[in-house]
Amino acid sequence: MQIGMIGLGRMGANMVRRLTQGGHHCVAYDRSPEALKTAVGYGAQAVSSPAELVKALAPPRAVWIMVPAAIVDSVIAQLKPQLAAGDILIDGGNSNYHDDIRRADELKAAGVHYLDVGTSGGVLGFEDGYCLMIGGDTDAVALVEPALATLAPGGRLPAGGAGAAAGSAAAALGYLHCGPAGAGHFVKMVHNGIEYGLMAAYAEGLNVLRHADAGLAAKTADAETAPLSNPRFFQYQLDIAAITEVWRHGSIISSRLLDLTAAALAKDGKLAGFAGHVADSGEGRWTVEAAIEVGVPAPVLSAALYARFESRGQADFANKVLSAMRLGFGGHVEK
Amino acid sequence: MQIGMIGLGRMGANMVRRLTQGGHHCVAYDRSPEALKTAVGYGAQAVSSPAELVKALAPPRAVWIMVPAAIVDSVIAQLKPQLAAGDILIDGGNSNYHDDIRRADELKAAGVHYLDVGTSGGVLGFEDGYCLMIGGDTDAVALVEPALATLAPGGRLPAGGAGAAAGSAAAALGYLHCGPAGAGHFVKMVHNGIEYGLMAAYAEGLNVLRHADAGLAAKTADAETAPLSNPRFFQYQLDIAAITEVWRHGSIISSRLLDLTAAALAKDGKLAGFAGHVADSGEGRWTVEAAIEVGVPAPVLSAALYARFESRGQADFANKVLSAMRLGFGGHVEK
Amino acid sequence: MQIGMIGLGRMGANMVRRLTQGGHHCVAYDRSPEALKTAVGYGAQAVSSPAELVKALAPPRAVWIMVPAAIVDSVIAQLKPQLAAGDILIDGGNSNYHDDIRRADELKAAGVHYLDVGTSGGVLGFEDGYCLMIGGDTDAVALVEPALATLAPGGRLPAGGAGAAAGSAAAALGYLHCGPAGAGHFVKMVHNGIEYGLMAAYAEGLNVLRHADAGLAAKTADAETAPLSNPRFFQYQLDIAAITEVWRHGSIISSRLLDLTAAALAKDGKLAGFAGHVADSGEGRWTVEAAIEVGVPAPVLSAALYARFESRGQADFANKVLSAMRLGFGGHVEK
Amino acid sequence: MQIGMIGLGRMGANMVRRLTQGGHHCVAYDRSPEALKTAVGYGAQAVSSPAELVKALAPPRAVWIMVPAAIVDSVIAQLKPQLAAGDILIDGGNSNYHDDIRRADELKAAGVHYLDVGTSGGVLGFEDGYCLMIGGDTDAVALVEPALATLAPGGRLPAGGAGAAAGSAAAALGYLHCGPAGAGHFVKMVHNGIEYGLMAAYAEGLNVLRHADAGLAAKTADAETAPLSNPRFFQYQLDIAAITEVWRHGSIISSRLLDLTAAALAKDGKLAGFAGHVADSGEGRWTVEAAIEVGVPAPVLSAALYARFESRGQADFANKVLSAMRLGFGGHVEK
Repeated sequence: MQIGMIGLGRMGANMVRRLTQGGHHCVAYDRSPEALKTAVGYGAQAVSSPAELVKALAPPRAVWIMVPAAIVDSVIAQLKPQLAAGDILIDGGNSNYHDDIRRADELKAAGVHYLDVGTSGGVLGFEDGYCLMIGGDTDAVALVEPALATLAPGGRLPAGGAGAAAGSAAAALGYLHCGPAGAGHFVKMVHNGIEYGLMAAYAEGLNVLRHADAGLAAKTADAETAPLSNPRFFQYQLDIAAITEVWRHGSIISSRLLDLTAAALAKDGKLAGFAGHVADSGEGRWTVEAAIEVGVPAPVLSAALYARFESRGQADFANKVLSAMRLGFGGHVEK
Repeated sequence: MQIGMIGLGRMGANMVRRLTQGGHHCVAYDRSPEALKTAVGYGAQAVSSPAELVKALAPPRAVWIMVPAAIVDSVIAQLKPQLAAGDILIDGGNSNYHDDIRRADELKAAGVHYLDVGTSGGVLGFEDGYCLMIGGDTDAVALVEPALATLAPGGRLPAGGAGAAAGSAAAALGYLHCGPAGAGHFVKMVHNGIEYGLMAAYAEGLNVLRHADAGLAAKTADAETAPLSNPRFFQYQLDIAAITEVWRHGSIISSRLLDLTAAALAKDGKLAGFAGHVADSGEGRWTVEAAIEVGVPAPVLSAALYARFESRGQADFANKVLSAMRLGFGGHVEK
Repeated sequence: MQIGMIGLGRMGANMVRRLTQGGHHCVAYDRSPEALKTAVGYGAQAVSSPAELVKALAPPRAVWIMVPAAIVDSVIAQLKPQLAAGDILIDGGNSNYHDDIRRADELKAAGVHYLDVGTSGGVLGFEDGYCLMIGGDTDAVALVEPALATLAPGGRLPAGGAGAAAGSAAAALGYLHCGPAGAGHFVKMVHNGIEYGLMAAYAEGLNVLRHADAGLAAKTADAETAPLSNPRFFQYQLDIAAITEVWRHGSIISSRLLDLTAAALAKDGKLAGFAGHVADSGEGRWTVEAAIEVGVPAPVLSAALYARFESRGQADFANKVLSAMRLGFGGHVEK
Repeated sequence: MQIGMIGLGRMGANMVRRLTQGGHHCVAYDRSPEALKTAVGYGAQAVSSPAELVKALAPPRAVWIMVPAAIVDSVIAQLKPQLAAGDILIDGGNSNYHDDIRRADELKAAGVHYLDVGTSGGVLGFEDGYCLMIGGDTDAVALVEPALATLAPGGRLPAGGAGAAAGSAAAALGYLHCGPAGAGHFVKMVHNGIEYGLMAAYAEGLNVLRHADAGLAAKTADAETAPLSNPRFFQYQLDIAAITEVWRHGSIISSRLLDLTAAALAKDGKLAGFAGHVADSGEGRWTVEAAIEVGVPAPVLSAALYARFESRGQADFANKVLSAMRLGFGGHVEK
């Protein structure tokens, strides 16, 4: 099918490439001439503005927007005057689903469909295919299904079981129409919230392995430091790279994130090239906020989020308060 | 090679089956005649006591113990008088690694090697092979390597990367000699601690999805209940089975645990057959205790553990204390 | 001074009583005739509607609203047409500070001041005086200061130290102008967030004391239950009521919440009259959401909030997911 | 009564002073001549060794040991040969209660009583009196009761309520016989665990207040940083010193720890003199370990403990693992 793509960064460029390889006709736009040139190399037709992109497509048009969440509204504002009833706008980025609900309402007046598509797969998605979570009208989803099927071929694994329901069978395709406007990004939001939790679980466990040699270190014996009660139980110098590798083969905790971790540790078992200042890009926050709004506990997802905040020094004042209290009641002076 | 197996439960029986299929000669013992009969069906030689099992093996003997952690010491006590210098005892269960260190010391006096082998793979291990984490003497590991290679064939996935170190390459075999006595169960302990965290991350996320319809419910408006601030943002009735299925295909959070979750939800999207009383079998506790001993934070692994305690009603008195305080300062009466 | 009070529930009635005892002239309104009668008994002048209440006051009027947060906007809508430039509306309830910012903006057009006053002290406030946290215009705060001084006499304790800054000295009065619109409820919100954390800290600790006898119980030895590793360390049957009482006398953890806890336990050391379903009324949620918005970790405040959600069964589906996974990988059947 | 005191540090010296002021005869020992001289100034009789201290007392002797937990066993070893049946050894420090159980057993053979006394009150205890939690034989407690009553006069507050049980009334004295050997330090351990939680609750809340101005800061708009969704809600520059002060007067969260916090902030509202590296001295760890052993959730107490670990950089490797994963799946480079 014919599809427009606005935004040719890491994700957008790879998606254009998969689409053209799949026989689709891509009309592509990006502010960067280099990005445009790359897309042309992948077989896309380059245009010089969002308006021109709309003109280059035959109605009903499908325009896929793959830009940072903060810019989506301005891109939509540029496109809207050019779009006609029946056209479909797709936000494939990481928008907050609240925005999707608003946008779908705003575009509906002009008869324009809006689809929110949560996209997982990252830089690996070009080769393996993406996982797409979709919110919006059923008709609009049907119109873009050929593109979805190319981007998200599914089938990496057999479907979940003999007794799989119809919904699960559809899901095995690799893309899923989750519900009305916002449902795609809602599911993607929770997906990323889970991702934070999974990442932190591995990170904490590996940190324990890393300190399995704590009993070998000479410790200062002072009243300000809790001594290791049994140094003889912490005498292991473990090869963490090898351990993550062996876990990939047959263990219950094997996963795609573990594959990535093992690969990183195989390059450098101490990860000395990283400072450990961990960013967060919104979905983890929104997931926890959604959990709180509906009143369900999310201690693991929250802890994973807070670990990132702490890695960036955001607990500093809290820690100073603790030190001030300790000085106050016990005369404890910081080491 | 020739190997003795004591304990023919879910795990032990399947391991005998893999070993005999791999051409090894298994001498098997279990208190249960049915279990013994099954093992004979798999090609094992049955014996009627641990002592007889030792006699049926040619030195240096390899005896694999696959029994509940609480029974390992009594099994070793039965075996010890029959064993000779150079023999190898293998504990393949879920012992606390503290016990491994003690046992290895005790057996060393008699020249008997002790290997602690953490085993992951569960009921899926028979088909896919196990992941084995090993602690003990290098010589002893070398002697049982043929059996290890059969149980843990590795190779399910290509090794973690082009730049993989030697250790990682070895790990790709599916079994890993992690270090001296206790190292195998230490690594397995942390493996299970991570498992708790991973499981909880999925569970919390799916619980948020499950409550995405909170805005559809009529809520009592009273001072004791925080109202949903934006009901219109929680109007989704999501097909959680389908969502877990689609995540298996191309998403960053695909994993073996997700496969199992999708399969369970495909059978029953509401999991109505479960009460939600979640047991824990020790390793999760020990992992958190180890983290605390060496002074590293483990908020995610702890939260995962505590969720299980809470699922079994272990927070009841704490909750009553909260209600009593609320009555005291605010006159709040429980609903 | 002359002051109007709308809402004569637990909090409002006691505040009227303090104000009239302090020599102020209170004009009071509530939908309930009984509540009105009580207020008259305290020396207040009763009126039959918000509109009449405004008429009964001389400009510039001060009208204090003490109603559930969900009703504040409708009360303001009734009052607004009657108010004149220079009048002061005070919301003394538990509004979300977002609403304060909006309301102050809306009322400013009519020249009406809006003060948001977070009120702590609960049912104990009548006797001991309240603690008031105030947001809004400085001029308006100055006008109602006589009433604030009666409600919040401060001075229960000497101010925090010889070197106390000017701001702290003012705070020792018992009320504090925290900042512009919303600042009062923002500070009260965080105050309540902290309260959740403090309550949970006591509750968790007391729960550990409650289970200090775990070693006395006969335990089933099965693979689904982690056994107590050292039963001899948990043989204490502690008098928790007495322990909370002794902590009140000289310990570092003495506090007003501990006073309440000790009083409740003195009545019933098992708190058998409570079910342990713990409500939350919004501020705890908003505090955590604010922490997440600004990117600071709040693991303790979150854990305290989640414990309440869990006490109400909100983790049920998550727990079922865990049980389903355990069945899947290990064949574990729920007990 | 006559009492020996070994260890004249911050705590021991003040206890000697309270005891001599209360009319008791103190025989004091410390390795430091200066500490001894100070004790003599308080009216104590100085001796030059533990052995001499025992000789200076008339049987049945009461010897109070107030030294770091790591040294207690060596002090007991020095004293034991000099002690006779009926004598009482008191450990008033912060021993792990496991050690108390062992020591009481060891001393019982010689007919020597052992009391474990958890002591709260810190540097404020000299003036206000201490809170004492006691484990051991009832007879031994009775013998030292005159000293306990001087150290822990209780009565700071009226007892918890009209309906207070007999146990609570006893507790109002300021000291409590909690149970057999170890019970005193067990209760003190949990006391400190709670203390960690309380401290962290305040610290987290104040940190939110500290960042209430987040909306005033210019933020870089990039894909690696979650933007503040509503900067206009975070425009407050709050006087945190004043806020903690006002909370001391009438609020539900007033407490002794809040008094200390307000005093510290009154001196320096930014706590610039602190680095925020927060030590932990064991009891917080043991409390969480005890909770895990008996299977009760302690998410708040754990989070408080982990915050301290994190403040000392103990999560570094975990954070590097997170950064490595993010690079792997999303090409995210650390800022």
